[in-house]
Amino acid sequence: MKATERWSKTDASRERDRAVERQAHLSAQFREIRAQTLALAAPLSAEDCALQSMPDASPVKWHLAHTSWFFETFILAPHLAGYRPLDPSYRVLFNSYYVQLGARHPRPERGLISRPGLTDVLAYRTHVDAHVARWLEVALPQASLDLFELGLHHEQQHQELILTDLKHLFSRNPARPVYRKLQRDAQRGVRALEWVDCSGGVRDIGFAGSGFCFDNEQPRHRVFLDPYRLANRLITNGEYLAFMQDGGYERPELWLSDGWDARVAQAWQAPLYWEQGPSGWEQFTLAGMQPIDEAAPVCHVSYYEADAFARWAKARLPTEAEWESAAAQMPRIGNLLERDALQPLPSPDSGRLGQMFGDVWEWTASAYLAYPGYRPAAGAVGEYNGKFMVNQFVLRGGSCVTPASHIRPTYRNFFPPAARWQFSGVRLARDAKR
Amino acid sequence: MKATERWSKTDASRERDRAVERQAHLSAQFREIRAQTLALAAPLSAEDCALQSMPDASPVKWHLAHTSWFFETFILAPHLAGYRPLDPSYRVLFNSYYVQLGARHPRPERGLISRPGLTDVLAYRTHVDAHVARWLEVALPQASLDLFELGLHHEQQHQELILTDLKHLFSRNPARPVYRKLQRDAQRGVRALEWVDCSGGVRDIGFAGSGFCFDNEQPRHRVFLDPYRLANRLITNGEYLAFMQDGGYERPELWLSDGWDARVAQAWQAPLYWEQGPSGWEQFTLAGMQPIDEAAPVCHVSYYEADAFARWAKARLPTEAEWESAAAQMPRIGNLLERDALQPLPSPDSGRLGQMFGDVWEWTASAYLAYPGYRPAAGAVGEYNGKFMVNQFVLRGGSCVTPASHIRPTYRNFFPPAARWQFSGVRLARDAKR
Amino acid sequence: MKATERWSKTDASRERDRAVERQAHLSAQFREIRAQTLALAAPLSAEDCALQSMPDASPVKWHLAHTSWFFETFILAPHLAGYRPLDPSYRVLFNSYYVQLGARHPRPERGLISRPGLTDVLAYRTHVDAHVARWLEVALPQASLDLFELGLHHEQQHQELILTDLKHLFSRNPARPVYRKLQRDAQRGVRALEWVDCSGGVRDIGFAGSGFCFDNEQPRHRVFLDPYRLANRLITNGEYLAFMQDGGYERPELWLSDGWDARVAQAWQAPLYWEQGPSGWEQFTLAGMQPIDEAAPVCHVSYYEADAFARWAKARLPTEAEWESAAAQMPRIGNLLERDALQPLPSPDSGRLGQMFGDVWEWTASAYLAYPGYRPAAGAVGEYNGKFMVNQFVLRGGSCVTPASHIRPTYRNFFPPAARWQFSGVRLARDAKR
Amino acid sequence: MKATERWSKTDASRERDRAVERQAHLSAQFREIRAQTLALAAPLSAEDCALQSMPDASPVKWHLAHTSWFFETFILAPHLAGYRPLDPSYRVLFNSYYVQLGARHPRPERGLISRPGLTDVLAYRTHVDAHVARWLEVALPQASLDLFELGLHHEQQHQELILTDLKHLFSRNPARPVYRKLQRDAQRGVRALEWVDCSGGVRDIGFAGSGFCFDNEQPRHRVFLDPYRLANRLITNGEYLAFMQDGGYERPELWLSDGWDARVAQAWQAPLYWEQGPSGWEQFTLAGMQPIDEAAPVCHVSYYEADAFARWAKARLPTEAEWESAAAQMPRIGNLLERDALQPLPSPDSGRLGQMFGDVWEWTASAYLAYPGYRPAAGAVGEYNGKFMVNQFVLRGGSCVTPASHIRPTYRNFFPPAARWQFSGVRLARDAKR
Repeated sequence: MKATERWSKTDASRERDRAVERQAHLSAQFREIRAQTLALAAPLSAEDCALQSMPDASPVKWHLAHTSWFFETFILAPHLAGYRPLDPSYRVLFNSYYVQLGARHPRPERGLISRPGLTDVLAYRTHVDAHVARWLEVALPQASLDLFELGLHHEQQHQELILTDLKHLFSRNPARPVYRKLQRDAQRGVRALEWVDCSGGVRDIGFAGSGFCFDNEQPRHRVFLDPYRLANRLITNGEYLAFMQDGGYERPELWLSDGWDARVAQAWQAPLYWEQGPSGWEQFTLAGMQPIDEAAPVCHVSYYEADAFARWAKARLPTEAEWESAAAQMPRIGNLLERDALQPLPSPDSGRLGQMFGDVWEWTASAYLAYPGYRPAAGAVGEYNGKFMVNQFVLRGGSCVTPASHIRPTYRNFFPPAARWQFSGVRLARDAKR
Repeated sequence: MKATERWSKTDASRERDRAVERQAHLSAQFREIRAQTLALAAPLSAEDCALQSMPDASPVKWHLAHTSWFFETFILAPHLAGYRPLDPSYRVLFNSYYVQLGARHPRPERGLISRPGLTDVLAYRTHVDAHVARWLEVALPQASLDLFELGLHHEQQHQELILTDLKHLFSRNPARPVYRKLQRDAQRGVRALEWVDCSGGVRDIGFAGSGFCFDNEQPRHRVFLDPYRLANRLITNGEYLAFMQDGGYERPELWLSDGWDARVAQAWQAPLYWEQGPSGWEQFTLAGMQPIDEAAPVCHVSYYEADAFARWAKARLPTEAEWESAAAQMPRIGNLLERDALQPLPSPDSGRLGQMFGDVWEWTASAYLAYPGYRPAAGAVGEYNGKFMVNQFVLRGGSCVTPASHIRPTYRNFFPPAARWQFSGVRLARDAKR
Repeated sequence: MKATERWSKTDASRERDRAVERQAHLSAQFREIRAQTLALAAPLSAEDCALQSMPDASPVKWHLAHTSWFFETFILAPHLAGYRPLDPSYRVLFNSYYVQLGARHPRPERGLISRPGLTDVLAYRTHVDAHVARWLEVALPQASLDLFELGLHHEQQHQELILTDLKHLFSRNPARPVYRKLQRDAQRGVRALEWVDCSGGVRDIGFAGSGFCFDNEQPRHRVFLDPYRLANRLITNGEYLAFMQDGGYERPELWLSDGWDARVAQAWQAPLYWEQGPSGWEQFTLAGMQPIDEAAPVCHVSYYEADAFARWAKARLPTEAEWESAAAQMPRIGNLLERDALQPLPSPDSGRLGQMFGDVWEWTASAYLAYPGYRPAAGAVGEYNGKFMVNQFVLRGGSCVTPASHIRPTYRNFFPPAARWQFSGVRLARDAKR
Repeated sequence: MKATERWSKTDASRERDRAVERQAHLSAQFREIRAQTLALAAPLSAEDCALQSMPDASPVKWHLAHTSWFFETFILAPHLAGYRPLDPSYRVLFNSYYVQLGARHPRPERGLISRPGLTDVLAYRTHVDAHVARWLEVALPQASLDLFELGLHHEQQHQELILTDLKHLFSRNPARPVYRKLQRDAQRGVRALEWVDCSGGVRDIGFAGSGFCFDNEQPRHRVFLDPYRLANRLITNGEYLAFMQDGGYERPELWLSDGWDARVAQAWQAPLYWEQGPSGWEQFTLAGMQPIDEAAPVCHVSYYEADAFARWAKARLPTEAEWESAAAQMPRIGNLLERDALQPLPSPDSGRLGQMFGDVWEWTASAYLAYPGYRPAAGAVGEYNGKFMVNQFVLRGGSCVTPASHIRPTYRNFFPPAARWQFSGVRLARDAKR
């Protein structure tokens, strides 16, 4: 036996070990993530889970079912021999937008489905979980595990949406129900806003490495950046109030033309969920109505509002490349879902760039477009990201309802510029001093 | 003591007796009607009861609550000493359209309310029932009993709406759920269509007598009628199919101009709930999808369709005065809610004028307007009928989901000419032969 | 020869004389009415005639062409041997709504037609006039003359619409152009409002006699009326201002439910064309902006506003039968088009019932429906009236822009309850004192 | 006197000479461009010039007036002593979107203005021209001349819009009027589609040099490009037909999600202005309906269609930086307005990259966003470009209705992705072979 052969045998065995380890890891993650989804829905009644408050949002029950549908459709149906769907009608009912998989129940009508009820959907989850467990019993090819891992991250996205959409639904109920009592910190002081210098030049942007990423984070590619500065923390409610008090919502010259039209048409006077209470502005939270915390980051603003605020502040929004370049080496810690705050919190007074991960998704000045050389994944999952690359802006960094294991420096979230129901906020940028 | 005095004493005592009897009767009716409402909702899940399928329809849960709100608002709050509402927010949440009672939750948003849940609403019903029972313990003035009786008939209207709105909701679910298995008669033959002569002249129209009626049925007044003829039964699905096959939905000359616009805009090709199945037309019913029964009355047609059909059939729709004049002396029997068919049935081959009560509401050619001398009831209940007297047409006779004790020859139902989700159908009329 | 035969010869000869006379009369009327139409357009530029301000209104040029199209389509094409249309494309372009005549250019797009230009349309009129003159050279059957007479009255309707639609167009121009300087009377005092008693009973309603009427005024038929009272004049701007100042536009309890929705959706605060000027309310007229004349009749109100005003005034609108019964024997004189005021004027202080003809069309409480026994005319002209018998209310009496020879006591005008651009106003009615 | 002083005197005198020369040049350009605008409108009637076919388009008369308003507002009013506007109301009436200049007549209502008429607007042009001539009589500071030059390029943009908007208006007229007979080339063969290699690396993008540019072309800045390939000519009608015949409009997987929604909602089946004629596809042109020339570039497609076509062709659209980098050194020649074709023409079979200028605006894959370091111009002209930097895509290269002196390699045109009424077409790109 030649040395190279021996070596390559060892190599193959190591690879096998890694594959086994990966499968075990994903299997554990699956159980954990699926349980976490259920935990999010636990405080909710069947009725809470059934309603849809607007076409952009979905019922919690739909999220619970659709995430199961994803595993059923992309894993069990094609890859588990003899698998039979619990209910064939779910194939259409819980398909979100995959046109290559056939008909879909129309999105704005997800709130018209009282049956299957929550109990049925929970049974569907159990059914899928059991079959996934069986599917995981044998050693699986990497390609299957890749799809499976996509399903895990897909479910985490819907965890965030469960809370985001539920918040919107509850906000439409005059009784303003409470999802959960939230602990409020003793009022913390506001960290001073400072500008952090970031160097320019040719930079590599996009995901590289061995872990998971979505197809829209690739390929890693070079961009040229001029030197720039980033604010050391997010913009606070207090700063946003100053903008409002300075006529921010009455001065069209601060706004993009489309943004001003949206402001007028929708009569925006403040961020979404803000209301004038007897003693000042209040906001609806997952713990019901609360007074505004001026030290906490402003949240639930559209791109248009973020952009107008930046213009008022004689600054601008960062591009996604600027943001990523600054965040690339930072630890992924912050006020994320596991912190269980469920609302953005004041910035701690430490670290060079604070709050890069968590609290609120940060609107960037970058339209959501394909990276140079972008290729969508093959098959129906290729519809996951690519077909939405128009009329949206990129947001970075995750929010207080994003699972920690879900976020990355290269992660590209995207929403239309008028969207406000997401946990979205503002970090400012400026050109470097010359 | 003079004879007249003695006599009038006896008279007063008789009146007291009648009052006691009336109160006992209404009290029994209350219990029965409230129980019947619950029975209608019994087969439904909390989710079935929470959803709203369109602005015109309301969630079952809302009907359950609003009928209780009616008693709370018009009886308990003003007339039961010390009454405290179960939840003060319900005053706004379950007010339908009474502007004199202050703010109302917007009708199109009734489906955004997950809390109070069905359990809460059932507790609300129990709370109201218990207090109504207490209120009924003492002898009450006639005026209070009048309002109370209005509440009973109001609840019966909502019994019909519970089934009507639920049918619409279920129809929007691709799984087409079944509310209840319905017995289908062995196919009965179709009764021959004959024209019944009705005489003209000056007629008294509107309610007279001592029982209950809505304010819009009064005052009784004189109208002049030319002699006319009425069809001896309702138009059947088979006859309506002939209209369709003769191009009924493709020939604008058969339609009112607004009707044709509605047909085009909403792409009507058949009555609501009809679908092309593999072996012909089917319709959605409270028992799910069923083949069309050609002998049964056509149902879920708009005024526009009824009018176009009549023109095609070289006939016309009756006026409400013609209908009432013919129905005035007829017994109020027919396929009504208690028959439990929950769908219109073929006409029995007996009686001069068949199917005048029950099966389907019959569109008349009369716009819904005030009778000469009409005065709405005083106070907020004056909004019950009068303010809707525009852009609607009168329907007569009740349907298969109308409680028998709720219908009268003078009863005026009303809906906009494009409405199709009600159990509405067609009886033809013609001028007398000259 | 028997006496009867001789007599009938004389009779036939008389009939011939009458026919000759009728044809001569209609021929003269044709020249006069066609010239009058042109006179109305004379002060206008080609651009004034080309624009369309809303789907309900048409360009003046379209009115000029469509009235010619009517004669071409119903008279020349079928009845003048060898007639060739000036331009075959006009058949579609200037068809208003006759579906039996084939395709129609869509109504909301009448303002997209720059060619044919005004010059072309005037040539079209000349072409049609010349051929009509030739057609009139021979003795014509009565049926043809009937259609021809319909064309004359049709053109008079469009004379009124030319001014009505132009007023709307000019009102949308910030420069508020002047159609013509109008003479304003020295301010006249306001006649006292008094109630005129009218008797009830069985009355004959609808046209009878030998002159012209539209098919919707027939057949003459009997109705039963309770005794009633009519106001002796129209409601004035001053009275309407009192309604406004008493919160008329802020009190939903005064309005029909649909009316209140319209008020809110369209933000009505006053009649159409009213604006707050530096020294009080002004209104746009065909002579530009003018101060409100409190003695003149209120104009450009919808049915909803008329109805709410009546409720506020503890009165009601008359039914069309009440109006006609009172007007039947009155002379057709008043502030009509020939008076050349082009705006409603204060009531003269004379006559039992003032202002029954002219000034403003009077909203009645009657929905526009078929009279008992109504039969639309045969052929495409049968679409003239009948297919609009839904969702509209009847107006009576003509306005300051109605030609005098066009109006009759039995004349039924009709518009949807939210329409305000017509010269429409208010006369009140009350039940007789009991 | 020292040498340097003498030298700098000469320098100042040279600068004066250049200033004089520039002013003379701009003065001549002004006369020429203003005359050219009038020449474009010369074949049109007053009515042609008054109508507005959709909110995105403006009447020709408005373009004639607004370009004069621009000179009046930015040059004459602030800079010509004693200037009095011809009509003060024009300040509002012909302001397009400059919120800093006060009220604006609403864009969708530009077609409601019959007065001022075309004659008045032409007089307005004369008035402005005369005063501009007087203003030019004295030597002017460079800043004023900069604004004046902006006015010239502004007018050229509206020259293009006059033809573009007029084409849309005429297309809505069923008679399909002819603006001008156009010469059609003898059918030319189709040049073979080849891929031209373009190198990557760090490139300078944006305007540099001494001539005119808009603010959105600056600052010149560096970008990093991967090597890429561009098609040597535009996509032809014939190639686009192949896409259509291959189900291009029926296969959602080829489209962006929003694009597919637009296709369905607007029922797109082909490019704008294409219609099925008796012997195949035809298109509406400024010379009326014409058969499709398969060798000519496809035109009047939206970004969505361009993008779907590219995906179908296994290619992509170029980014604007790729396009500019390739075009930077090319001569600005092509089928531009002065060629007088008024429609795109087949590519000549010569040159490395054909048709880069003229024929059709080329959709790029780049969202219209600010260049790094972008600063809008000071004052109200700062609204010219910056506030539209959202929801639009960049188009490059000019079209057959773009004046030759108006286009540049750095020129950034921009429209929303669903816009089709512009002369917009497709050039494909691909990544370099690896």
